Amino acid sequence: MKTLNIIKIGGNVIDDESKLNDFIQSLASLNEPFILVHGGGKLATNLAEKLNIPQQLIEGRRITDAETLKITTMVYAGYINKNIVAKLQKHHINSVGLSGADGNLIPATKRIHQEIDYGFVGDISIENVNSNFLDLLLQSGLTPVICAITHDKQGQLLNTNADTIASVLASALATSFQVKLTYCFEKKGVLNNSDDENSVIKNLDWDTFQKLKEEGIINKGMVPKIKNAFDALVNGVEEVGITSAENITNFIKSNHYEGTRIN
Amino acid sequence: MKTLNIIKIGGNVIDDESKLNDFIQSLASLNEPFILVHGGGKLATNLAEKLNIPQQLIEGRRITDAETLKITTMVYAGYINKNIVAKLQKHHINSVGLSGADGNLIPATKRIHQEIDYGFVGDISIENVNSNFLDLLLQSGLTPVICAITHDKQGQLLNTNADTIASVLASALATSFQVKLTYCFEKKGVLNNSDDENSVIKNLDWDTFQKLKEEGIINKGMVPKIKNAFDALVNGVEEVGITSAENITNFIKSNHYEGTRIN
Repeated sequence: MKTLNIIKIGGNVIDDESKLNDFIQSLASLNEPFILVHGGGKLATNLAEKLNIPQQLIEGRRITDAETLKITTMVYAGYINKNIVAKLQKHHINSVGLSGADGNLIPATKRIHQEIDYGFVGDISIENVNSNFLDLLLQSGLTPVICAITHDKQGQLLNTNADTIASVLASALATSFQVKLTYCFEKKGVLNNSDDENSVIKNLDWDTFQKLKEEGIINKGMVPKIKNAFDALVNGVEEVGITSAENITNFIKSNHYEGTRIN
Repeated sequence: MKTLNIIKIGGNVIDDESKLNDFIQSLASLNEPFILVHGGGKLATNLAEKLNIPQQLIEGRRITDAETLKITTMVYAGYINKNIVAKLQKHHINSVGLSGADGNLIPATKRIHQEIDYGFVGDISIENVNSNFLDLLLQSGLTPVICAITHDKQGQLLNTNADTIASVLASALATSFQVKLTYCFEKKGVLNNSDDENSVIKNLDWDTFQKLKEEGIINKGMVPKIKNAFDALVNGVEEVGITSAENITNFIKSNHYEGTRIN
């Protein structure tokens, strides 16, 4: 099977144009097919503030009312997505920016109100991903750039966590590709000691993850991120890793030299 | 050759959710392949106002400074484009929302500052359109939905008039399809008397257009729109018409029953 990289980038790269430019330049040297999944960063929050729309985050997840959905759709699917595509085109990577509504790529189900009403948030599953559409693009030499907006097939757009999208897409494509999933974030990898940037855990297995979570060393937004990473591994993704955006090509090319490998 | 409709919609449909829903429902009954090109409507202007970014329009064309480009990218490529795609998906039309940067679809050249500096505005040409990418989507049963954002291949997004995009795409595809280009706007067609909604000119030829333009009967934003329509005809587009959004399916199915045919 062919190798396919699925790379997820978040706010720290997106919010910093110079970092984003460097990151995209390094992707251009990758010489392996990839899909880029991106979150939203601070732009959506900043825009909401300017428009006086109050924002609420619970465990790193945005509560998405109708006005917030409008903002995230504008920022994620519009501004960020198209700028990334234009920057990739500059480096001769023929990319196509997509939401989960495009090509019916990622149908979702609006999350049912339990303890917390997350609003217009979509839950997704591996079996609903339209991987044929991604195959069509990849086979034509196109690079999909996917934002964290999905749809319910009834005309409603939904907000979906970008880490989850990366994990679910990687899992859906694992039957037709040797998928390498890499989460890029602001640290060099998962840290054993949050005060020591160099205490990167080279290999993280499920038991160690549980232990570090109980000890509070892995906490907050890192918990669902790492859960998504393990989900992908369980679902047949070949390699799953967490590293910094600066280190992406080294990480992929040198088989996880610097960063955390999930195993 | 296969028939392909290229349909352009503007602000009057986009700004009115109920009209947009009706329009999309009527597209679902078309039973012919189509490409939808959309403009931006009042949403971009409203957002700019809320954010205190002054807007300037000259002959219906927006002066696009960096902040305005950000807004148009968010509104056109994000909010409007993805909502149209989600609404089409509801009606089982598998659509893909695109800017001119996606798939390198519409490379543009930043307009050179002459009398008026239009800012980040892109001029486009038929020969630069990547019609192979559209062919790939159409052959796979996908419906492209294209917003009025292009790129310069150097990482810069640009604003481009949606009427011009529709005309240039229609012309570029005229070598491989029998293209029918339809501009939808707020009137039933081009009027002989702007005070009489029913004075629709059934057939508009170049000489009549020149005459009505000189008499001031055709004026303002209608002039470049009709010029774009004639350009398409000259460039091999099979049929070019102007009608109301409400009348789109009648117009296409009944060979221009109500509306203006350009000839």
